[in-house]
Amino acid sequence: MVTQRDVAKLAGVSVRTVSNVVNDYTYVAEETRARVRQALDELGYRPNLLARGLARGRSGLIALVLPLDVPYFYELSEYVVVEAERRGYTILIDRTDGQATRERALVSRTDRSAIFDGIIFSPIGLGGPELRYRTADTPVVLLGEKPVGASLDRVQVDDVAAAEAATSHLIGLGRHRIAAVGQPVKARSQTAQHRTLGYQRALQAAGHEFDPDLVATVTDFHRADGALAMTRLLEARRPPDAVFCYNDLMALGALRTLLSKGYRVPEDVAVAGFDDIEDGRYSTPTLTTVAPDKQQIASQAMDLLIRRLDGDAGPPKTARAGWQLMPRESTSIRSNPGHSL
Amino acid sequence: MVTQRDVAKLAGVSVRTVSNVVNDYTYVAEETRARVRQALDELGYRPNLLARGLARGRSGLIALVLPLDVPYFYELSEYVVVEAERRGYTILIDRTDGQATRERALVSRTDRSAIFDGIIFSPIGLGGPELRYRTADTPVVLLGEKPVGASLDRVQVDDVAAAEAATSHLIGLGRHRIAAVGQPVKARSQTAQHRTLGYQRALQAAGHEFDPDLVATVTDFHRADGALAMTRLLEARRPPDAVFCYNDLMALGALRTLLSKGYRVPEDVAVAGFDDIEDGRYSTPTLTTVAPDKQQIASQAMDLLIRRLDGDAGPPKTARAGWQLMPRESTSIRSNPGHSL
Repeated sequence: MVTQRDVAKLAGVSVRTVSNVVNDYTYVAEETRARVRQALDELGYRPNLLARGLARGRSGLIALVLPLDVPYFYELSEYVVVEAERRGYTILIDRTDGQATRERALVSRTDRSAIFDGIIFSPIGLGGPELRYRTADTPVVLLGEKPVGASLDRVQVDDVAAAEAATSHLIGLGRHRIAAVGQPVKARSQTAQHRTLGYQRALQAAGHEFDPDLVATVTDFHRADGALAMTRLLEARRPPDAVFCYNDLMALGALRTLLSKGYRVPEDVAVAGFDDIEDGRYSTPTLTTVAPDKQQIASQAMDLLIRRLDGDAGPPKTARAGWQLMPRESTSIRSNPGHSL
Repeated sequence: MVTQRDVAKLAGVSVRTVSNVVNDYTYVAEETRARVRQALDELGYRPNLLARGLARGRSGLIALVLPLDVPYFYELSEYVVVEAERRGYTILIDRTDGQATRERALVSRTDRSAIFDGIIFSPIGLGGPELRYRTADTPVVLLGEKPVGASLDRVQVDDVAAAEAATSHLIGLGRHRIAAVGQPVKARSQTAQHRTLGYQRALQAAGHEFDPDLVATVTDFHRADGALAMTRLLEARRPPDAVFCYNDLMALGALRTLLSKGYRVPEDVAVAGFDDIEDGRYSTPTLTTVAPDKQQIASQAMDLLIRRLDGDAGPPKTARAGWQLMPRESTSIRSNPGHSL
């Protein structure tokens, strides 16, 4: 194996200079840099990852394990990349898309987890006990709701309160038949349950009766699921006059169904989502939504992880990130205050 | 350092059984698996990445380096993940978002590239010579246009022909003032240049005069850039009656500008994009676009990379992936064939 010492000898420079060039520090004179690069090329030098990792105990790499099929998460990933960069870490993203086999592969005791100093993880397919076992070696911070039974550091948003606020906003428009779209057929994370709970609390607080026919279940959280759920709701005996979707993606699918069938939004049916993805700021009408504070989520996740990397062995911590209701055209009353008046 | 042999001794099983459990093979009896896991926990076993990597000469990891701020690329990434899985590789995504410093960090001769067997890369910020130098150690396959001067394996779509087809489609609606949105203020990859060339060829073939006022430059390729370009085009002395945007994201921004200002699409202005992202299948109107064959791009990229990993040292190869024009509502003439009649 070629070492930096070999390269230094060939280039006629110090080992430190070789190291500076290898690590891309910029203060090496251009002429020296060229000579070192030529020597690196000639000898076919390749840095020894584990040797360096063992020496420092760190790779500087953090895995961000996400269901990247939902735009909320790739928008969030940009904030995590920036917050990690600020703290000297590099993020590599593993897109699991909620598939348990992929989540299992990433956090298992194999090569893949061994290269990471830590993992930031939004699990969907994996349950609590398996998660805890599989992450025993590497510090993990969970994003989103706590999966049943897992006791790990996590960052979460108050889904119950946020869903209650979105539903109350729809009630405030004078709507009486408010549907909820996003309860999964097969329970996975607790997120959907919490949003249903917030929806129910808002109805109760306003003295509205809870109608189970207005809760549309979905198999996934994509546009197609929202579009299909909306189609089913419109075919019901008493269709809704407003709909709260558990993410913007489903809300955009519901919006498409409504507009393509000739309904006016918000005049006939008001629509609200959750996530504040960019798509909803450019749709027509623009989409009312709940905006989780993505920057805060990313920053808190990195802080929790670094606390563990610094040796904190205390009990798991939960950080709460903020959120904000963003009323937009899909619920704006304009000249027509809704047909319930 | 704890070895699998230590674990085997403690658990009273063979080293092969320990290896099977560590690698998550499923055919180990549950009772044995539990015993091995307990021994792994007790001894704090952690697999030795580099030792295994050196023994096999492979980490099994491939970096996918992308501007993930453009949805086309995260849709493409799912195909790459699947095609890699099929061939026994794991993809880790590095989101560079076109920033040269991030692209440089990833493909430099440091830890970060040393852990990867290969790199699939869509460079935006990095020029050819720097790219070639920095990727000399690790096989690289480029996605998209060839950056000037880089001679590396790549997969590309015929941007000239595809842009020509999209523009010809708009001409076929009877439109005469067709704008092009997406020529960057500061040239980066050749993609935009090729799409402008295709646009010009279509105009020429139809005997339309080329009007430089109808080519709107952008600073980036996001929704906001398309919205701003459309606003400027509408303020011109002779506004367009159709617009071809170099990606769907900009087309969705242009669509928002048009609808919010009271223009009808496609009656007043027809809109076409490029990429076939899911957003454009759910917008109202749905978006006409060019659909590159993402599955084919992913499959060809993996095939090119594996050829290099298998030792092929021949000259760089270029694979061409297919594309298809997808006419949708944003250019469908319906009852009104356009005001040019």
